[in-house]
Amino acid sequence: MNLKLNKLNNLDYFFNPKSIAIIGASAKNLSVGKTLIENLKESYKGKIYLINPKRKSILGLKTYPKIEDVKDKIDLVIIATPAKTVPSIVKECSKKKIKAAIIISAGFKELGKPGIELENQIRKNKGDMRIIGPNCLGIINSLNKLNASFAKDMPLKGKLAFISQSGALGCAVLDWSLKEKIGLSSFVSIGSMIDINFSELISYYGKDPNTKAILIYMENIADPLEFLVEASKVTLKKPIILIKAGRSSAGSKAATSHTGAITGNDEVFTAALKRAGILQVNTISELFSIADLISKQPLSNNPNLAIITNAGGPGVIATDSLEINNAFLAKLSKKTYLELNKFLPKAWSHSNPIDILGDASDELYAKTVKVLVKDKNIGGILIILTPQHMTEATKVAKKLKSFSKLNIPIFTSFMGGDSVTIAIEELIKEGIPNFPFPDDATKAFSMMSKYSKDLKKIYQPSNKNKTLINENKKKKASELLKKAFSKNKLLLDEYESKKLIELYDIPIVQTFIAKTKNEAVKYSKKIGFPIVLKIYSKTITHKKKVGGVKLNLKNEIDVKKAFDEIYSNIKKIKKQKEFLGVTVQKMIKLDGYEVIAGSTLDNQFGPVIIFGSGGSLVEIYNDKALTIPPIDKKLAKKMIESTKIYKAIKGLKNNKQALEKLQDILVKLSYLVLDFPVIKEIDINPILISKDKIIALDARVLLNPSHRLKKRL
Amino acid sequence: MNLKLNKLNNLDYFFNPKSIAIIGASAKNLSVGKTLIENLKESYKGKIYLINPKRKSILGLKTYPKIEDVKDKIDLVIIATPAKTVPSIVKECSKKKIKAAIIISAGFKELGKPGIELENQIRKNKGDMRIIGPNCLGIINSLNKLNASFAKDMPLKGKLAFISQSGALGCAVLDWSLKEKIGLSSFVSIGSMIDINFSELISYYGKDPNTKAILIYMENIADPLEFLVEASKVTLKKPIILIKAGRSSAGSKAATSHTGAITGNDEVFTAALKRAGILQVNTISELFSIADLISKQPLSNNPNLAIITNAGGPGVIATDSLEINNAFLAKLSKKTYLELNKFLPKAWSHSNPIDILGDASDELYAKTVKVLVKDKNIGGILIILTPQHMTEATKVAKKLKSFSKLNIPIFTSFMGGDSVTIAIEELIKEGIPNFPFPDDATKAFSMMSKYSKDLKKIYQPSNKNKTLINENKKKKASELLKKAFSKNKLLLDEYESKKLIELYDIPIVQTFIAKTKNEAVKYSKKIGFPIVLKIYSKTITHKKKVGGVKLNLKNEIDVKKAFDEIYSNIKKIKKQKEFLGVTVQKMIKLDGYEVIAGSTLDNQFGPVIIFGSGGSLVEIYNDKALTIPPIDKKLAKKMIESTKIYKAIKGLKNNKQALEKLQDILVKLSYLVLDFPVIKEIDINPILISKDKIIALDARVLLNPSHRLKKRL
Repeated sequence: MNLKLNKLNNLDYFFNPKSIAIIGASAKNLSVGKTLIENLKESYKGKIYLINPKRKSILGLKTYPKIEDVKDKIDLVIIATPAKTVPSIVKECSKKKIKAAIIISAGFKELGKPGIELENQIRKNKGDMRIIGPNCLGIINSLNKLNASFAKDMPLKGKLAFISQSGALGCAVLDWSLKEKIGLSSFVSIGSMIDINFSELISYYGKDPNTKAILIYMENIADPLEFLVEASKVTLKKPIILIKAGRSSAGSKAATSHTGAITGNDEVFTAALKRAGILQVNTISELFSIADLISKQPLSNNPNLAIITNAGGPGVIATDSLEINNAFLAKLSKKTYLELNKFLPKAWSHSNPIDILGDASDELYAKTVKVLVKDKNIGGILIILTPQHMTEATKVAKKLKSFSKLNIPIFTSFMGGDSVTIAIEELIKEGIPNFPFPDDATKAFSMMSKYSKDLKKIYQPSNKNKTLINENKKKKASELLKKAFSKNKLLLDEYESKKLIELYDIPIVQTFIAKTKNEAVKYSKKIGFPIVLKIYSKTITHKKKVGGVKLNLKNEIDVKKAFDEIYSNIKKIKKQKEFLGVTVQKMIKLDGYEVIAGSTLDNQFGPVIIFGSGGSLVEIYNDKALTIPPIDKKLAKKMIESTKIYKAIKGLKNNKQALEKLQDILVKLSYLVLDFPVIKEIDINPILISKDKIIALDARVLLNPSHRLKKRL
Repeated sequence: MNLKLNKLNNLDYFFNPKSIAIIGASAKNLSVGKTLIENLKESYKGKIYLINPKRKSILGLKTYPKIEDVKDKIDLVIIATPAKTVPSIVKECSKKKIKAAIIISAGFKELGKPGIELENQIRKNKGDMRIIGPNCLGIINSLNKLNASFAKDMPLKGKLAFISQSGALGCAVLDWSLKEKIGLSSFVSIGSMIDINFSELISYYGKDPNTKAILIYMENIADPLEFLVEASKVTLKKPIILIKAGRSSAGSKAATSHTGAITGNDEVFTAALKRAGILQVNTISELFSIADLISKQPLSNNPNLAIITNAGGPGVIATDSLEINNAFLAKLSKKTYLELNKFLPKAWSHSNPIDILGDASDELYAKTVKVLVKDKNIGGILIILTPQHMTEATKVAKKLKSFSKLNIPIFTSFMGGDSVTIAIEELIKEGIPNFPFPDDATKAFSMMSKYSKDLKKIYQPSNKNKTLINENKKKKASELLKKAFSKNKLLLDEYESKKLIELYDIPIVQTFIAKTKNEAVKYSKKIGFPIVLKIYSKTITHKKKVGGVKLNLKNEIDVKKAFDEIYSNIKKIKKQKEFLGVTVQKMIKLDGYEVIAGSTLDNQFGPVIIFGSGGSLVEIYNDKALTIPPIDKKLAKKMIESTKIYKAIKGLKNNKQALEKLQDILVKLSYLVLDFPVIKEIDINPILISKDKIIALDARVLLNPSHRLKKRL
């Protein structure tokens, strides 16, 4: 823990260094080495040391042949020399006890093996020095005007920290942010993450009082589980908004189970982010429009919006987008209505959206907002202005100034071009975010209120495993799996799969193996009629096809007859050697709803639990929820509620009990999966839910061939 | 037809008038009447006459007391006087044989009854004169610089016609279009549509050589069926892109059938637009980004895009958005690959997206595009530029000039702010649309290519009804419905519903009514065992609940026993008087997939046909397609293919036959619905599809109480 804190402290040398050295400083026009000097000189207030063995000075600054020639203390070094020289430079810097290094140079792991070798050398040589990069643009701190990058723009001061894994995209966004007047607290081009990764940066920003929200452009996540743990701590304090590139290229994977087939990498990623309280957006413009709203105005988890407008159409468009994105028009309280009615013109809309008509003055806008902010039903206020005949947009903007720091978000859509340009500048100055179109504004509000609501439900993912399963049963389960794995039997048979599920207290139809006709009768009587017999065989998997399944056997005679028939069917195809007897189970009437519970292994995040519509059409409807275990009953409930089949279950007479039991099944399943990392995939499908019972009818367990047999198993 | 043409010709008086009179011309600053004069004077080249009884001249133009005082011919009159004066003014104008009038004045039907009365008077008084408005902003023709509106901005010349039902929104968009440099051919604020409506305007623009695409902001559609017919003609020639306001407020309606329950007004509207080949967008920014692309570049129905970029990240983001929106990365032909490989730097991406690296010159961009345009696999080219160290954006933009008029769309995403401003201006000048972010660019391309592909599949909706149903059967169906309707029996019972469906040659399980036990046995034998008996009653609808359903009866004895049991169950609850016998039908094994086919009545568009996943979970999965009849087998196929359950059906052994039969069912259903407008809702659910059969198991028909009994019925 101490180590962690210390690491975080060291990050400060990047953002607030007292002295900086540039290795690879150059006098050549347009070179990276020269741009770095120019950018630093522009506004950095600390000491700058240039390292260049060939020159005496550059841009009026003295140069040193080597870093060791600088006798003063250096906090941060920026390295922009050819890749092959970097390992030894890193060694020198480390020797000089420099705390932080930004490696701008490219030519490492992106070039394959020789590059990876160079990276390994850097890791070996770096000592305690922290590194950002290589293959990055550098960092910018807009608060102290430190530009330790070769991006030429210093962003406006603001409260957003932006971490970009693409330098070029970062650069373009910085440039664009100036035009759109979106301020940043700092910018990090994170590069190849040889040392400092997303997890550490978000921890750092989590504690940075100047940062109100963290934006991330991510191409790949180096440390999925660490990232989730850190992110879930940070998001309790401030929002993380993330756009992930490369979502479509995840590709499909071969899967033997339903669960595996319907669970894509990208979906797991999305579920994991949600679990950690991160707001994932789909487009770059969404990233910034939501960031703008969140960084300037308070988070609202009340999805009821009031809309003030001086024109009907834009109000309707705003409402559509609001409701399509699952937020709502606030219902005005009676008091609010009466107060508004006192001073608004007769023809006002008399409801929300509050159309205060085309000739609305700045006074009228202000009076309306003033009434609305007192209404507790309202979770946010959008003010729409269209430049009409009498509209004085700038006056209105100035009047809104006094509402810019309320405890609910106030935001605007002043529509148009030149007519509203100055007004919008006024709004931005006051910290009121403006959206060019009202539908984009309400979409951002909807996403924000949903996000804020979800935040309340965050569960800290942890690898702790408080299994409530009886130790004896657990041991039996372990033996069952060990036996199968040691025989290299990766797909458990129906009997074994069901047994395993049963050991974890998941209600599943009781199944016995009967080697003889008499045993079959004995078990049938024990279970009670009607009965189902299925062939028991280690090799025959398509049981129905070979005549190996007999349903609805109502008495002893039926059972005996069925046993004989199954045997003779198998004999007909000359597989009688593979006939090891039959399984005996209760015939269950399919009169409820079928659901599936299951698990699969994700490459990045490990086990994933899914729940959804079951039966044979699982892949057709693809109606499911997924999350990363462990889960408790509350989270299980949330999963169930987010599926379509939930609506059907809710319609059952005993729905409360059914839901309780279903939650219990998911929690137990999560224990099972976490207890035995050897499990690759589980399908419990169908689980039948009807008004008087909930029971799994079948299960399928697949083991992971690449799992190393651990002591526990 | 002649009348229609004539009407269209008259529209030209709005857009190209030789003389214009303003009634309500005013000298008062900021008044509408003065703004109208100022706007007209600004650039209109025809004659202007001002009507104002109180002044001699305004702004140096002579005024006339009344319109009849103007002795010259007037093509267009703009009326901006109080509502109550408008009817008589219209009369005077009509008397003077003025061809066209724009009524700016508000205060008509939006104010309720008195306003509607004024509108009726206008209709009565207008004669042959055509009217745009009332309650509108007016019109602008940017090609001849006619601003016959009180919106102050003259848009840039362009190829988009924009029709807005909200004046304020129109105004804001005009202002914004100047800032974003999006050109328009003309703008119409359509107002309350007392005379000229969307249908006529799109017909006009359909024939206007200066308009390449039509944009519509619609709040309500006055003439749904006429609009569809006109739109489907126009969209064969040029795109119509539409945003509909008020989608969320459609509200839910009470419905007794599944079909009714899952068919929202907005969904019908969307289906109707699609049927007419209109591209419906969801946000204002989408409206303009797609319009920009379509108006400047050729439509492409090849969804395979090539992406050139000087940075990896933006290429990946663009690809994600492309694929999420159902278009694709083009696979480069071998020839293309080899040619590119000749001159691109070694480290280029070697595949699409074609990353030509951070220091890419204008020459390199141009050479790459030149190779790509020859590759027939490619349906469009997106050129991404991020302002990097060596990037000369303006030079690149200039080099792209020669590719601005190819037969596939070329568009760009030059990202950033000041670094690319001049470059983007160059691109716009050359007719190359630029998107601030690459993901928005690929989304627009995806929507365009999908739209263009859909256009090929347009079916002309028509009310022609080429029923292929035997006249005798049709007559019987008519009698069945007439009988029910005349008894005010709006919900047909199971037997009647099935009978009706059967008369239209839709395969449905054969059902007989047996009044006695012996009849039940007789029919059972006729049908063949196993058999299902259900109580037949005019009043008892929940048959299962009262013990009125007996399944899987295997022989004569079973049937007799079941008949007695049903009777005694009914007797137990003292409803034996309502027992009219039983229905007898085949027991069908539920071993395939269940689908639903049905119809409902939409307030605007009339009958709607739906197809989707059936069974008891119809409303849960809500997996469906809907369209406006009539439909042929091709369209039926398209409907089926757009559902999820199609994937399951496709997996059947005899899927071709099953699909054929299913298409046939939908076509017949569409005949039935069109033949009998008295039908309000039909559910045929479930229709069971398995590898060897397709048969409907149940049906439910509901009649429309507000239908007037027509002769045909």
